[in-house]
Amino acid sequence: MGSTLFPQHIIAKKRDGGALSREEIGAFVRGATDGSWADYQLSALLMAIFLRGMTPEETAHYTEAMMRSGVVADLSHVPGVKVDKHSTGGVGDKVSIPLAPMVAACGVPVPMISGRGLGHSGGTLDKLESIPGFRTDLSLDAYRAQVAKIGCALIGQTKDLAPADKKLYALRDVTATVECIPLICGSILSKKLAEGIDALVLDVKYGRGAFMKTEAEAHELAAALVRVGGAGGKEVRALLTAMDQPLGRAVGNALEVAEAIACLRGEGPEDLMEVTVALGVQMLLLGGAAKDEAAAGAKLLEVVRNGRALEKFREIIAAQGGDARVVDDPARLPQATIKRAVAAPVAGIVSSVDAMETALAALRLGAGRARAEDKIDPAVGVADLVKIGEPVRAGGRLCTIHANDEAAAREAEERLLRAVTIANARPPDQRLIAGLMA
Amino acid sequence: MGSTLFPQHIIAKKRDGGALSREEIGAFVRGATDGSWADYQLSALLMAIFLRGMTPEETAHYTEAMMRSGVVADLSHVPGVKVDKHSTGGVGDKVSIPLAPMVAACGVPVPMISGRGLGHSGGTLDKLESIPGFRTDLSLDAYRAQVAKIGCALIGQTKDLAPADKKLYALRDVTATVECIPLICGSILSKKLAEGIDALVLDVKYGRGAFMKTEAEAHELAAALVRVGGAGGKEVRALLTAMDQPLGRAVGNALEVAEAIACLRGEGPEDLMEVTVALGVQMLLLGGAAKDEAAAGAKLLEVVRNGRALEKFREIIAAQGGDARVVDDPARLPQATIKRAVAAPVAGIVSSVDAMETALAALRLGAGRARAEDKIDPAVGVADLVKIGEPVRAGGRLCTIHANDEAAAREAEERLLRAVTIANARPPDQRLIAGLMA
Repeated sequence: MGSTLFPQHIIAKKRDGGALSREEIGAFVRGATDGSWADYQLSALLMAIFLRGMTPEETAHYTEAMMRSGVVADLSHVPGVKVDKHSTGGVGDKVSIPLAPMVAACGVPVPMISGRGLGHSGGTLDKLESIPGFRTDLSLDAYRAQVAKIGCALIGQTKDLAPADKKLYALRDVTATVECIPLICGSILSKKLAEGIDALVLDVKYGRGAFMKTEAEAHELAAALVRVGGAGGKEVRALLTAMDQPLGRAVGNALEVAEAIACLRGEGPEDLMEVTVALGVQMLLLGGAAKDEAAAGAKLLEVVRNGRALEKFREIIAAQGGDARVVDDPARLPQATIKRAVAAPVAGIVSSVDAMETALAALRLGAGRARAEDKIDPAVGVADLVKIGEPVRAGGRLCTIHANDEAAAREAEERLLRAVTIANARPPDQRLIAGLMA
Repeated sequence: MGSTLFPQHIIAKKRDGGALSREEIGAFVRGATDGSWADYQLSALLMAIFLRGMTPEETAHYTEAMMRSGVVADLSHVPGVKVDKHSTGGVGDKVSIPLAPMVAACGVPVPMISGRGLGHSGGTLDKLESIPGFRTDLSLDAYRAQVAKIGCALIGQTKDLAPADKKLYALRDVTATVECIPLICGSILSKKLAEGIDALVLDVKYGRGAFMKTEAEAHELAAALVRVGGAGGKEVRALLTAMDQPLGRAVGNALEVAEAIACLRGEGPEDLMEVTVALGVQMLLLGGAAKDEAAAGAKLLEVVRNGRALEKFREIIAAQGGDARVVDDPARLPQATIKRAVAAPVAGIVSSVDAMETALAALRLGAGRARAEDKIDPAVGVADLVKIGEPVRAGGRLCTIHANDEAAAREAEERLLRAVTIANARPPDQRLIAGLMA
């Protein structure tokens, strides 16, 4: 009470450590959406929030206000519990691509709105668009119709979904206010809740190639996401997964799609399959498609074995205008002109593969964006990458560079040689999945 | 080292509690001046500074960078130690108007660049401009010439003086980042150091009618100002003075000029004269015009007694285009159409006169600005105001309202009746001047 809704008063209240009311947070988010707050007022409040924090109630109000800043998709015409998955971002993280068709093939609708890659982190949309003809810019109506018809759609954020988040995220990026758990929570969940889902499984990654560097930070973020999602009336579960080495053996758009297809054939790398199934298990449980984890896991492996997951992926590609023949003939994906093995300088056992260095090598090849306006090259990247614990002989292959530029290939090779550490002894096993928060 | 000068990196460093280097602060202030930092980046850093603070070194670098963001006036052609005075702002604070001619009449040059009033706090420029014809918008060249010729000029800030402060102050005002000692220090001192002065005396006010509410806060600000001024190579002294009741008996532009003229005739209110002489003593000591406080005080009273201070004021008014006859005939100042006594509801002794309520009454009459773009009415305000400790009889005069609008006069009267408290016993004496910091 007593506080008017003037920007200065709301900023001063948070500056002094106060908890903002639902109305005050509403005024802030409305101000970001309709321009009634100046950018410099938004950024002053963002910095005050960064330094003073937000209570769980504030974070929930913030998330809800951001969700309601635009359209909230209505999927009530689709029967069943609609479940999506979101990852906080990693290197080689193509999990969504095999996961969505696997879960949909088990009968749980998967409405998935994804983002593009920026910096070291890849984006599902960019990967999918390496499939010739594949369109991710469906309208919300087309998205709703496709989820109803085939149980899954993989599209990009439309401009009428959570516009406040788009505005505030752009400001946070240039005002050093990104790494703030309440603001991250609001950003992730507002977009996901606006998709029209009933439940959500999160993959919260930590390590050198992740946004959160330590398991403790990831734990804190996961707890906040589960709590705020629950306050928004959605069941949210979060897996904590390690991201020190890249996930799978490929980093780069078409190369990752090829690896995702291998997964759907039951031929994917072990770590990628482990994370995909672990997330899928939680999605099936939330979707009511299995009675326990063992049954859910078995069901997911069954749709891989019997080809129904692969068939669902074909359906999705075809529905979104893509060339579904890539599923059977990955050579139809864009190919780089230069394919070159990187040779191990010494023999030994791989003790680490630095996810960040690998990502920067792929970025140098053109697989990612240093700035939002950069164009990406779908064909380039790194494939056949060794994994921690694998033996290599001197001169043996550490990975294969796929490049369209000789100078970039040379620089990427230098980075990749730095990325891989070869030791004499096998390193201790590390957990890939550190826990589940529900 | 290691930190580049990108805005995001500088903001993040302060956000995390780091001390910014001279180069980083330089980049920030340059960014404010040339527009290379966006407003939202400036305001994010201002909020981080508000919450994380600045070291004395950072504050000194900030002040210097702000001073050098524009022209620094060169007064080296004026012989002697040039000394100015600055007040942090109070109600009825017309001290500069009698002080500047008194000190100049004692042979110490006073180059004074002042501000306008905003909110409850009046501005010396607005008061001076109530003298018919008086111009405060002199060029820097005219200002330099006038200081050389008659030892004093009273002008307004030109746009080429500390432009970074103008930009940042406007942003602070709308982003809840005003009340921050390092930022206040930089704002006050950058402008004053750019005037070309050698030394500065500050009047740091505290109390209900001041910016700083407690003596402790004023003490902290004064200490910072003295320290940062010293780091900038200028001798700075600060008096701490109470601002619970208005200074003098008049609040309003022409009314305060009339009171200032009374001071120069030796007929001013006791409290106003006390503060004026105390500040003048420090200015004469800094200017080398007296050997000790007693001699300085005697010299100031002498130029009042012998009329040389009044004559200096006539010279200043004439030099700046004003009608110097107001000095001998204050009725030539603008006059309000309504002059009405406010009657005491009961008899007793005045135990408090709330400076803020009095200021708001004057503001309602049109003597001040609620917003920077408001026009002021030079004639209106409050005069003949009772002082704490004075007896009043029931129906006796508490003050005289000078108004040009009947409704405003009625509202001001209500406020003034609330402002003055009448008790049975004499209140304990309060110190007007709490200390000197040098």
